[in-house]
Amino acid sequence: MPTEDTAMVVVMRHTATSQDIDSVVRAVEEVGGDAFVSRGKHQTIVGLVGDLAQFSEMPLHAFPGVDDVIRVSRPYKLVSNETHPRPSTVWVDDVPIGRDTVTLIAGPCAVETEDQTLAAAKMARDAGALILRGGAYKPRTSPYSFQGLGEKGLDILAGVAEEVGLPFVTEVVTPADIDTVAAKAHMLQVGARNMQNFQLLREVGMSGKPVLLKRGLTATIDEWIMAAEYIAHQGNLQVVLCERGIRTYEPATRNTLDVSAVPVVQSLTHLPVIVDPSHSGGTRDLVLPLARAGIAVGADGLIIDMHPRPETALCDGPQALKRDDIVTLREAVSTLATAVGRQLPERRDPALSAGGAWGRSAN
Amino acid sequence: MPTEDTAMVVVMRHTATSQDIDSVVRAVEEVGGDAFVSRGKHQTIVGLVGDLAQFSEMPLHAFPGVDDVIRVSRPYKLVSNETHPRPSTVWVDDVPIGRDTVTLIAGPCAVETEDQTLAAAKMARDAGALILRGGAYKPRTSPYSFQGLGEKGLDILAGVAEEVGLPFVTEVVTPADIDTVAAKAHMLQVGARNMQNFQLLREVGMSGKPVLLKRGLTATIDEWIMAAEYIAHQGNLQVVLCERGIRTYEPATRNTLDVSAVPVVQSLTHLPVIVDPSHSGGTRDLVLPLARAGIAVGADGLIIDMHPRPETALCDGPQALKRDDIVTLREAVSTLATAVGRQLPERRDPALSAGGAWGRSAN
Amino acid sequence: MPTEDTAMVVVMRHTATSQDIDSVVRAVEEVGGDAFVSRGKHQTIVGLVGDLAQFSEMPLHAFPGVDDVIRVSRPYKLVSNETHPRPSTVWVDDVPIGRDTVTLIAGPCAVETEDQTLAAAKMARDAGALILRGGAYKPRTSPYSFQGLGEKGLDILAGVAEEVGLPFVTEVVTPADIDTVAAKAHMLQVGARNMQNFQLLREVGMSGKPVLLKRGLTATIDEWIMAAEYIAHQGNLQVVLCERGIRTYEPATRNTLDVSAVPVVQSLTHLPVIVDPSHSGGTRDLVLPLARAGIAVGADGLIIDMHPRPETALCDGPQALKRDDIVTLREAVSTLATAVGRQLPERRDPALSAGGAWGRSAN
Amino acid sequence: MPTEDTAMVVVMRHTATSQDIDSVVRAVEEVGGDAFVSRGKHQTIVGLVGDLAQFSEMPLHAFPGVDDVIRVSRPYKLVSNETHPRPSTVWVDDVPIGRDTVTLIAGPCAVETEDQTLAAAKMARDAGALILRGGAYKPRTSPYSFQGLGEKGLDILAGVAEEVGLPFVTEVVTPADIDTVAAKAHMLQVGARNMQNFQLLREVGMSGKPVLLKRGLTATIDEWIMAAEYIAHQGNLQVVLCERGIRTYEPATRNTLDVSAVPVVQSLTHLPVIVDPSHSGGTRDLVLPLARAGIAVGADGLIIDMHPRPETALCDGPQALKRDDIVTLREAVSTLATAVGRQLPERRDPALSAGGAWGRSAN
Repeated sequence: MPTEDTAMVVVMRHTATSQDIDSVVRAVEEVGGDAFVSRGKHQTIVGLVGDLAQFSEMPLHAFPGVDDVIRVSRPYKLVSNETHPRPSTVWVDDVPIGRDTVTLIAGPCAVETEDQTLAAAKMARDAGALILRGGAYKPRTSPYSFQGLGEKGLDILAGVAEEVGLPFVTEVVTPADIDTVAAKAHMLQVGARNMQNFQLLREVGMSGKPVLLKRGLTATIDEWIMAAEYIAHQGNLQVVLCERGIRTYEPATRNTLDVSAVPVVQSLTHLPVIVDPSHSGGTRDLVLPLARAGIAVGADGLIIDMHPRPETALCDGPQALKRDDIVTLREAVSTLATAVGRQLPERRDPALSAGGAWGRSAN
Repeated sequence: MPTEDTAMVVVMRHTATSQDIDSVVRAVEEVGGDAFVSRGKHQTIVGLVGDLAQFSEMPLHAFPGVDDVIRVSRPYKLVSNETHPRPSTVWVDDVPIGRDTVTLIAGPCAVETEDQTLAAAKMARDAGALILRGGAYKPRTSPYSFQGLGEKGLDILAGVAEEVGLPFVTEVVTPADIDTVAAKAHMLQVGARNMQNFQLLREVGMSGKPVLLKRGLTATIDEWIMAAEYIAHQGNLQVVLCERGIRTYEPATRNTLDVSAVPVVQSLTHLPVIVDPSHSGGTRDLVLPLARAGIAVGADGLIIDMHPRPETALCDGPQALKRDDIVTLREAVSTLATAVGRQLPERRDPALSAGGAWGRSAN
Repeated sequence: MPTEDTAMVVVMRHTATSQDIDSVVRAVEEVGGDAFVSRGKHQTIVGLVGDLAQFSEMPLHAFPGVDDVIRVSRPYKLVSNETHPRPSTVWVDDVPIGRDTVTLIAGPCAVETEDQTLAAAKMARDAGALILRGGAYKPRTSPYSFQGLGEKGLDILAGVAEEVGLPFVTEVVTPADIDTVAAKAHMLQVGARNMQNFQLLREVGMSGKPVLLKRGLTATIDEWIMAAEYIAHQGNLQVVLCERGIRTYEPATRNTLDVSAVPVVQSLTHLPVIVDPSHSGGTRDLVLPLARAGIAVGADGLIIDMHPRPETALCDGPQALKRDDIVTLREAVSTLATAVGRQLPERRDPALSAGGAWGRSAN
Repeated sequence: MPTEDTAMVVVMRHTATSQDIDSVVRAVEEVGGDAFVSRGKHQTIVGLVGDLAQFSEMPLHAFPGVDDVIRVSRPYKLVSNETHPRPSTVWVDDVPIGRDTVTLIAGPCAVETEDQTLAAAKMARDAGALILRGGAYKPRTSPYSFQGLGEKGLDILAGVAEEVGLPFVTEVVTPADIDTVAAKAHMLQVGARNMQNFQLLREVGMSGKPVLLKRGLTATIDEWIMAAEYIAHQGNLQVVLCERGIRTYEPATRNTLDVSAVPVVQSLTHLPVIVDPSHSGGTRDLVLPLARAGIAVGADGLIIDMHPRPETALCDGPQALKRDDIVTLREAVSTLATAVGRQLPERRDPALSAGGAWGRSAN
């Protein structure tokens, strides 16, 4: 853990005594921090500056006379751009995701059959995707819904990825499956519902694989970045954040795509951040407008569902793009990327890639 | 406006220069405030203490090097229990609403006919209500919905109130109607949708009548109290706050009754706060459980819809209590009030009331 | 009110009797509607089809045996694209806002002085704005905040608009001010806090002026469109909707810009819809990314705050664009508009405009 | 999986053709369901009735001409009170949690030391708790926060529980720990962040232990009940639901306790539901009012944090009750339980308990 300056403000109650104020100051000084008292006629606040490790566990809120404790520095370190000012590029096999490019990830929501997966993968490639997505292990709200093909689905996906020549990302839902999935996939996805499954975060951190970390349905941006910090804490900085819509009171869309989160995250961390326009809107008609908005707001990539026959899909058919949409998508990505001064990424020279830290060696 | 101590914290960016910090300090000192600098190795914060009027308009957030500005003292004064530590009792004609009692307000959501209003008013009285409620001017989401009977409804309500011998509260939706309504009603209601209709707040403040101020559907507690401060700012401290459910992502209930708001408001202001279990739940089955919860959490009263024939109601029939519910309600209010150490209120001696500032003279 | 087909579904409880079902069917038939019963072994639903006016006030939810009533058709008519399939263009003096163009509205949040207003108006014109914005009457959360210059501010704005040669829009906060404002402004703004101030909606409807209707902080899209229906109901179809961010649990931004609302609104109504990237984000750094996202998602225009010296602004300084941002904004609007196949609008020939229904005659 | 009647409504677009309608009807009939068409002049809806298993995977939303698909029956079966009308009582060792009683669960948020745990357990017993709570494995937002003592904490907890003579519940955060925890604890807790960790739900389902299932921070009531269905689906119906506050826009409290959820859940399932007033409010002052509200609204129990010295607590000190609060809590629980017609539970005769299905044999 990096030792680093941190800051907090302790707001005292109107009724706090000098003794109350002193006991806060002493407690801070005992752990080696500095406390600065700002005393007004009725209101007193105490500013604390020092090392994070010292303060993070101090229950100052429970001290007598304390009204509120406000943290004013960021709780994450390894993924912060304060410690690592240059934006990172994460390599998924030979494909980069970073601040200068717009990388398209696409494929079926769920792997159903080899035919369907292959058809969707070809659609993805035609749309300009450089990374294939597909779900083998599916977290579903109902135990009666299709739960994914599991390891069989993983094999289908690996075969199809080989055939279309793209690396692939797939979700892992429980620590016990990580080894199996990491042996085949080029990137591990942690889904929205598992964003605070801390044991899963630790273990994907230990896997050494790049990780696609979806924002929880109602995670704040700070909690989301802290989840990335869990992964980084295991020595794995290859994390891509993915905004996929948050839960709000609005019923017209499945979720509300929080495009503001993209520039906010980019101002706080060095990690790439992409946008998922498929799961946030929940209907096909919204995918292209939201994909355009994602690129325009500055996302480093997109992840999009597609299906050869959405009306038969076992999962999230209503939002999957169809063949007819492929050309429009490819053109939209290319036009918008140019409009915001970005390029489409190029795959790394295979000669270099072979020996790369994040190369295909796991396969 | 009371001049009073206020406090803020200015958080400087990591990249802020000494000049940036100095210019914040100077700006604060120029308006007569005190600035205390807490400087760490990487993080600096500036604590400000001084007079509210001086800081409230300073755009410190726009100063170079400033990352964030955090207000740590309360923005309201007249309704704060810092300036007025004893809880207030608001009198509606001869009926008190205050911290030691549980006052029941009840009646029809909307005035439809004289018969329906009288029947509902008798139900209210039988349930133990000491104040009658009823809507003559109705704010409706759709221009095609029943908009209330207006002045005719007000006359019906006044007649029925006289007949059952209870003072009444009714909503006012626009400044132009205040004089008409205030001439007959004993208390003016500002509805949830108008909680930040500031001109309406000012003018009910000037009316001299007690005001029932509903919380906006998505108002924070601070914004709600600030709305009460608008009324108080016109010299009218006879304000009763009403928690009526907030908008959340949960679709199972019309709104989410925020019972925590009751003790929070009581810890911040001297004003009474009541609960509306009818509009938050949206169905009859929830009214009694939420009424019980409201009293148990410490509300100073309840406001409840009732209707002699809910299946014909022109407004919010599904949530109106029926005749069968009256006895249960009366007993629940009485039992729960006792369980939390409160009493049912007694009406003030008419001899005293006649000459009182909030008496019936307006009639 | 247009008579039109509407549909609802009544879901019966498991315990509903045949009598319960019959009484729903009879009630619907009595008002001339058709009821279709879908009866399963355990679950029965009744589909209703007929005229809106007949059902909208029926309290079916309060009938015995009824579990839920679900409306499946849209509650609004005049602003719906079912009744008016071609997108409308709203003219603000000689400037169009419509589906083929991207119209920029810009200016100071609040009118403070003539100099500041003129400087901001010139910045707006330089950025490519064709309509000037500026606040003379300001709704403020605190009674202690700057409340706007009122009529004096209106005069400053009118003079400046004349000088820079642009029509202007300004907010009206209470019905009593409409005549004064409408005599000078080319478009009336209804702010987020007043979106359900129904009397204000009716009266701006009667004013005959184009109306800019901001979405309430926590209004659903349906409620927002219904607010537009209130204006249309007075015969005024010149309404432009404005998405300005909604209230969510996320504290990192002032509000969450709901870009999905743009295509959703465009799929439901014929009205133009624009985006306000200044008030949603709350900080200058977010304005340009959100402006880009707004155009990319398909907005018909933008409304943006600018100020010659944001660090002295009396209102919302932290989010106002500065002189340095003007060129970037102009280029971003132009590039993005092209990227999504739109044009910058052209002002109408003054010869035509003079006699136009929405022309400058009011001045 | 129980086969059971289910119902859905398919809403057709205005532009849907007869063919579109027919293809929906045919698809439903092919899987053995019944489709009822309700056709109006402009709007057509199709009611579907049949077996859940047949429809749940049909992507009707993706059919041409379909505007919306609305499910009108409940998606859960085993935990529904439609299939199991009598409320269940869940036994934690010899302590019942059910509809006629109010069961208090209490103890330290986190196990820190043996002394602290024993002191907190004695406070819990003095307050009238019949079940001890305590965290050995702690899910924490930050990797730098105290993560719990793990297996050592579990041993402390087991020893203390033995000493004070109470069964105990503790959280399990990952499938790999279930066997270890289930060997000692009398009830397994699934925390809010893991409410949709489906593998964890399946495995606690298989453990045969009673489960305390906290509501996710932003789970809808339906999703929460579906999570219980996952556990029930493994043959384990000993599930107690726990409302612990939901995430809303309101910053004044850590979460918003959704008391309405209690009667709503009780109207939908046969499972007991309790309330956690400690984690929702986030401050000590709110615990007692919210505890009272929880009982008044009809909760079957409470779970409350307590700590002998909150100002030294390693986790959530600010909300832990102190020694001074114990008597007040005991009296509040007893008085309120009586006021709503409930009793305090009695432990089962040990002679019976020894041989009981949920007895202490696991120890």
